[in-house]
Amino acid sequence: MLKAAIFGASGYTGLELLRILANHPDAKVVEATSRQYKGTPIPEVFPALRGFYDDLLFSDPEDLGSVKADVAFSAMPHGASQDVVPELLKKNRVIDLSADFRLHDKDTYNAWYGEHKAAHLLSEAVYGLPELYRKDIKGARLVANPGCYPTSAILALAPLAKKGLIKTGSAIIDSKSGVSGAGRGATLATSFVEASSGFKAYKVGSHRHTPEIEQELTIAAGGQLGVRFTPHLIPVSRGILTTAYAELNRTLSNSEMRDIYIEAYSNERFVRLLPDGSFPDISQVRGSNFCDIGLFIDGSRVTVVSAIDNLVKGASGHAVQNMNIMFGLDEKAALFTPPLSI
Amino acid sequence: MLKAAIFGASGYTGLELLRILANHPDAKVVEATSRQYKGTPIPEVFPALRGFYDDLLFSDPEDLGSVKADVAFSAMPHGASQDVVPELLKKNRVIDLSADFRLHDKDTYNAWYGEHKAAHLLSEAVYGLPELYRKDIKGARLVANPGCYPTSAILALAPLAKKGLIKTGSAIIDSKSGVSGAGRGATLATSFVEASSGFKAYKVGSHRHTPEIEQELTIAAGGQLGVRFTPHLIPVSRGILTTAYAELNRTLSNSEMRDIYIEAYSNERFVRLLPDGSFPDISQVRGSNFCDIGLFIDGSRVTVVSAIDNLVKGASGHAVQNMNIMFGLDEKAALFTPPLSI
Amino acid sequence: MLKAAIFGASGYTGLELLRILANHPDAKVVEATSRQYKGTPIPEVFPALRGFYDDLLFSDPEDLGSVKADVAFSAMPHGASQDVVPELLKKNRVIDLSADFRLHDKDTYNAWYGEHKAAHLLSEAVYGLPELYRKDIKGARLVANPGCYPTSAILALAPLAKKGLIKTGSAIIDSKSGVSGAGRGATLATSFVEASSGFKAYKVGSHRHTPEIEQELTIAAGGQLGVRFTPHLIPVSRGILTTAYAELNRTLSNSEMRDIYIEAYSNERFVRLLPDGSFPDISQVRGSNFCDIGLFIDGSRVTVVSAIDNLVKGASGHAVQNMNIMFGLDEKAALFTPPLSI
Amino acid sequence: MLKAAIFGASGYTGLELLRILANHPDAKVVEATSRQYKGTPIPEVFPALRGFYDDLLFSDPEDLGSVKADVAFSAMPHGASQDVVPELLKKNRVIDLSADFRLHDKDTYNAWYGEHKAAHLLSEAVYGLPELYRKDIKGARLVANPGCYPTSAILALAPLAKKGLIKTGSAIIDSKSGVSGAGRGATLATSFVEASSGFKAYKVGSHRHTPEIEQELTIAAGGQLGVRFTPHLIPVSRGILTTAYAELNRTLSNSEMRDIYIEAYSNERFVRLLPDGSFPDISQVRGSNFCDIGLFIDGSRVTVVSAIDNLVKGASGHAVQNMNIMFGLDEKAALFTPPLSI
Repeated sequence: MLKAAIFGASGYTGLELLRILANHPDAKVVEATSRQYKGTPIPEVFPALRGFYDDLLFSDPEDLGSVKADVAFSAMPHGASQDVVPELLKKNRVIDLSADFRLHDKDTYNAWYGEHKAAHLLSEAVYGLPELYRKDIKGARLVANPGCYPTSAILALAPLAKKGLIKTGSAIIDSKSGVSGAGRGATLATSFVEASSGFKAYKVGSHRHTPEIEQELTIAAGGQLGVRFTPHLIPVSRGILTTAYAELNRTLSNSEMRDIYIEAYSNERFVRLLPDGSFPDISQVRGSNFCDIGLFIDGSRVTVVSAIDNLVKGASGHAVQNMNIMFGLDEKAALFTPPLSI
Repeated sequence: MLKAAIFGASGYTGLELLRILANHPDAKVVEATSRQYKGTPIPEVFPALRGFYDDLLFSDPEDLGSVKADVAFSAMPHGASQDVVPELLKKNRVIDLSADFRLHDKDTYNAWYGEHKAAHLLSEAVYGLPELYRKDIKGARLVANPGCYPTSAILALAPLAKKGLIKTGSAIIDSKSGVSGAGRGATLATSFVEASSGFKAYKVGSHRHTPEIEQELTIAAGGQLGVRFTPHLIPVSRGILTTAYAELNRTLSNSEMRDIYIEAYSNERFVRLLPDGSFPDISQVRGSNFCDIGLFIDGSRVTVVSAIDNLVKGASGHAVQNMNIMFGLDEKAALFTPPLSI
Repeated sequence: MLKAAIFGASGYTGLELLRILANHPDAKVVEATSRQYKGTPIPEVFPALRGFYDDLLFSDPEDLGSVKADVAFSAMPHGASQDVVPELLKKNRVIDLSADFRLHDKDTYNAWYGEHKAAHLLSEAVYGLPELYRKDIKGARLVANPGCYPTSAILALAPLAKKGLIKTGSAIIDSKSGVSGAGRGATLATSFVEASSGFKAYKVGSHRHTPEIEQELTIAAGGQLGVRFTPHLIPVSRGILTTAYAELNRTLSNSEMRDIYIEAYSNERFVRLLPDGSFPDISQVRGSNFCDIGLFIDGSRVTVVSAIDNLVKGASGHAVQNMNIMFGLDEKAALFTPPLSI
Repeated sequence: MLKAAIFGASGYTGLELLRILANHPDAKVVEATSRQYKGTPIPEVFPALRGFYDDLLFSDPEDLGSVKADVAFSAMPHGASQDVVPELLKKNRVIDLSADFRLHDKDTYNAWYGEHKAAHLLSEAVYGLPELYRKDIKGARLVANPGCYPTSAILALAPLAKKGLIKTGSAIIDSKSGVSGAGRGATLATSFVEASSGFKAYKVGSHRHTPEIEQELTIAAGGQLGVRFTPHLIPVSRGILTTAYAELNRTLSNSEMRDIYIEAYSNERFVRLLPDGSFPDISQVRGSNFCDIGLFIDGSRVTVVSAIDNLVKGASGHAVQNMNIMFGLDEKAALFTPPLSI
């Protein structure tokens, strides 16, 4: 039985790790830290988990040294994660759910997030997208779990990018996310009253996931792509839908385009390619680790629509998938369950 | 043109006063205070109001002395309102939307809310429910605007109480409120993610609106009634539905019961009695000052269902109705508009 | 591997059976009928199930005779279920999710639902509430799966009823249900636009679940109880919260009341008794088979609040729990998973 | 007092016309037809309107000849509207809310909607967007009220198009609409349970509003633009947010771009240009006739975000604005009210 520790377990990605791992046949959570709730039984903070973690108390993150685990998840915010990851790596293989180790280039990190305090680990960290880097993940000591928006955007366009088909400067990522993406801190903008009848774009042209999407699509394409990215807020708790537009270097028939995606994903259990004329709905992936993808092409102009649950394939499920790969477990363990679509 | 000032105008009842008064033919807002936003143009805080209050800045509540208005609304929280109301009364007639002047009995106030700092005004304040106290409101210097839950509960049961029909100890008020009732402060419990898929009872047996409901139904009945009150949280922004149960002293036919309500409300423009077999839906009063009421009787057991918009008839619309009465304006002015039902 | 057939599998209880059984270690669905969708692969109708039932087509319910299964679930509407259950019983043990076999008294059934066409089975059918009838369920040939509202109401009050503590005529069941309780048929009242900002009482004093609640609480109490039941519609997909009020024959202390519930439920894995002062929220049981219960007493007046997912503990999860009991499987199999609380 | 008749008044645009005109100082509804509800008082169908149209019954659309009105609104579906409009025009000036008279080119209409039965009126009909065609509307006998998506898209991009700045083939209209856009007919896809946790793209590359957007942006630009249009469904009742992308022929500074929009809209009372860095939210225009617009430019790439209430500025409010213009009334009458933002 693999022993897992979760650092910063009282946020939504922490809750989601606890939820998913509660049913893992080969792993169990032995430690969950929370500065705010240390000493409190988990079900007092998360009543949904009553019956599952009744004997586990949130522990103090200061007691880092005493943790005996095989794998450590860091579910702390960016900036805070880089403080603990170097320490954790001394004893554990680490899966970091923050943005701290996703960008390979230190200057890019510094420009978007501020001075990195553990930049020496950037070159070692493996970007944890199994559909692109499964082999690297298997051997990794430190996995940087992808961001939610980037997961949906990269899975949507990487197959075309890898074929060198996307015209530079043409890619537009119009993404829409549920409110849980903003985390568990209480803010006016994410309060029920403000958000429940609203829909808006935010951080137009300036969202921090932009360089992460660019990095990965540029690697896939073998050259700078120059994406435009606009995030929006949907009045649902979970789900990201990305509508990705691009202009190709040449026209493709519908079936040529489909073949490219079949080649990329036919062996992937968590990517579901929808039939012609069908497009994904976030409700159909809710609570699950699936990424559903729908395709449209008109000459050389493509529209690819992808849907994930931002807390599962966009965060904690993705992290468990990476754990399964790193430790040679069944990649689907604890993850291959039907979505709660209604 | 009546000049109105709003103290504590940056919460939801303040926003709602601004919204309603923007279309008042005979009144205009000349001052709106906010400690947090002082100096900021109103539309920067409330973008919906762009085009209506473009030249009005939130002012500092400390500048109380400089206000030149005919009527002052206090939309401050309970406890804070009693600090400013005595001062406001020196120059203005006052409508207080907090709980501070609703209870006639100082000891009851102190027991539920803590020590009152302006208890000498309790006997003067008029409980601002026009359907019961229209005449007193007309001449009042200080109107205590009713609470949202009490408005729905009192309008539901007062007609029966006034006839002395309700058996002591039998009244149960099962109320359900939208999230805006909790105010504009950001909290985890009222965040979108926590509230949007939930429904719960809260403060079972201990909500502060209990003594207010008891006071008014006891006055109506001419003797102690002993209500049980359970509030619940609905995942909508606006609306309160109250399902009120009581056992009567004797059986009534359906039409006898209906006649009692017709007698009570046939001249009331904001109470709409629904036909037999019809029951209210909060969506049908949304954004409006109406209270819809549906009736059911089975022998001596009655079920009365009432619906209001908690921010309008449950707060700011009610307050404007009181202003209209106090100043001899058309009682319906700015208020008689169709609900936004969808 | 137990073979399960689902009749009427294209509604929400059918979808939910498919969802839950997809992860059952000891049972699998071998047949799912749908008149409307016969011949269509399940994932075309329910895209969430893509990857799980890719090779299973909805079959024609007319082909009843050819089914080879160990257990048959009937997820057909009341009235229709009684047409097929007698036939199914010739070859299978049957769990019926409709209302057709829940009432023991034929006249009561006829009065509320119309003439019963298989009334001879009423005396044989076992009411499938494991917390009350586990032993009978184990040996049953026909289990009548409880209604959603009754499950929440009976689990809330049965412990007090069994102690003979509830005063006749005092019980009030104020229940609130998510929209999925109305089924998958498209109606104006359950459309998004009509329901999403609404909350209403409906069928006041006349809902068909009333006799079912009365039957079971009367059996528990050993004498007629006379409940009043008011259902309401919450703008969420899933969940029922029941606020049950009763007057007791005598006063109880808080701990005496708690002990009664501990005695009743301490061995039940799917009933979670909340600590003093805590009350359930439907979000905390969503997607799960749990029933959460919170208690309040003031002298002889009790308020018990219960929460279930109407599609799981209120329907399909309950049915799988019954299947597990009937066939000697682990009662928790496929069911003991954490709720999707956000 | 202007007399208005509404044909097909029992859908959502009909309800919205009734709601808005209830408070019009210079117009009143004298007739409202509905095949389904003929003979029924309006408040029985729309309980929100109780107190406003208590004496008006839905009339039979067959009695077309007897209508005595100054203006007729046709709120019938496309295809049906063209059957009645020629008849209505014999006696009334007509505002048609369907798609039937929006396209100037008969062949385009036929290609997207099927054979037009009153194509001779296409050349006479004025496209009812006051911000572009106010003078023509003033004198029009037949106004084709714009579609909801086109209103948001055209107001977003027309100022740039009119300056000839948009590069051909570069415009992408990514629009998101609330569910009321689908109308009042009950369908599975627009049921609460299916829609409330979902978000999806639909009719990718094939939505019928595409030629309407193209027509108007092409006229504005003075040459074919070639837009790509993707509609999505938001789980809210009301609101459209359009995120429009385009590549310009040359770079513009932020203030140059802003000046173009100020020039276009500074005299428009229903278009609100948001400050730099602010972007619209559909909640801030809900229930109102406003279109809020936010601007972003990076070199030659622009992102323009617009928000309207699809039932008001996207339909019935727009229609009343057109009526006000046609009859020389205050253009703001009945329309200049603050949004119900929460």
